[in-house]
Amino acid sequence: MKAHIHVTLKKGVLDPQGKAIENALKTLGFNNVKSVRQGKFIEIDIDENDPKQAESQAKQMSNKLLANTVIENFHVDILENQ
Amino acid sequence: MKAHIHVTLKKGVLDPQGKAIENALKTLGFNNVKSVRQGKFIEIDIDENDPKQAESQAKQMSNKLLANTVIENFHVDILENQ
Repeated sequence: MKAHIHVTLKKGVLDPQGKAIENALKTLGFNNVKSVRQGKFIEIDIDENDPKQAESQAKQMSNKLLANTVIENFHVDILENQ
Repeated sequence: MKAHIHVTLKKGVLDPQGKAIENALKTLGFNNVKSVRQGKFIEIDIDENDPKQAESQAKQMSNKLLANTVIENFHVDILENQ
């Protein structure tokens, strides 16, 4: 079963990487870009058949390792048919 | 209008960062992790009301700047009501 985890910076936390992308896009002529935020996307293949269990495990992984919950939020999606 | 862009490594391209996460998860006791792939997630706020136009622009941005299309795939989602 596959878990898709998005880790994004919380609102109010400065995102220099996003800002750099925003400036680069404007330099390339994309002038209608209002803002850019960059996050991480992690796909984990879990050997588990119960979607509830898989989701619970993916949340534990995010809390323990993948996200720094002081400055980052995470969101877990479980793809049941894969 | 917001565009969500996922940039992921193509199949067959080595992903040392994903491998490092996989090993760290196993060290933490998550033994049913089969594989991990890491990608980038980019949220762009575009000043554009037409979803088709926004999607076309987000794809251009991905091709020109956000993804290295030699080794990476990208996927664009447009959130129409934001």
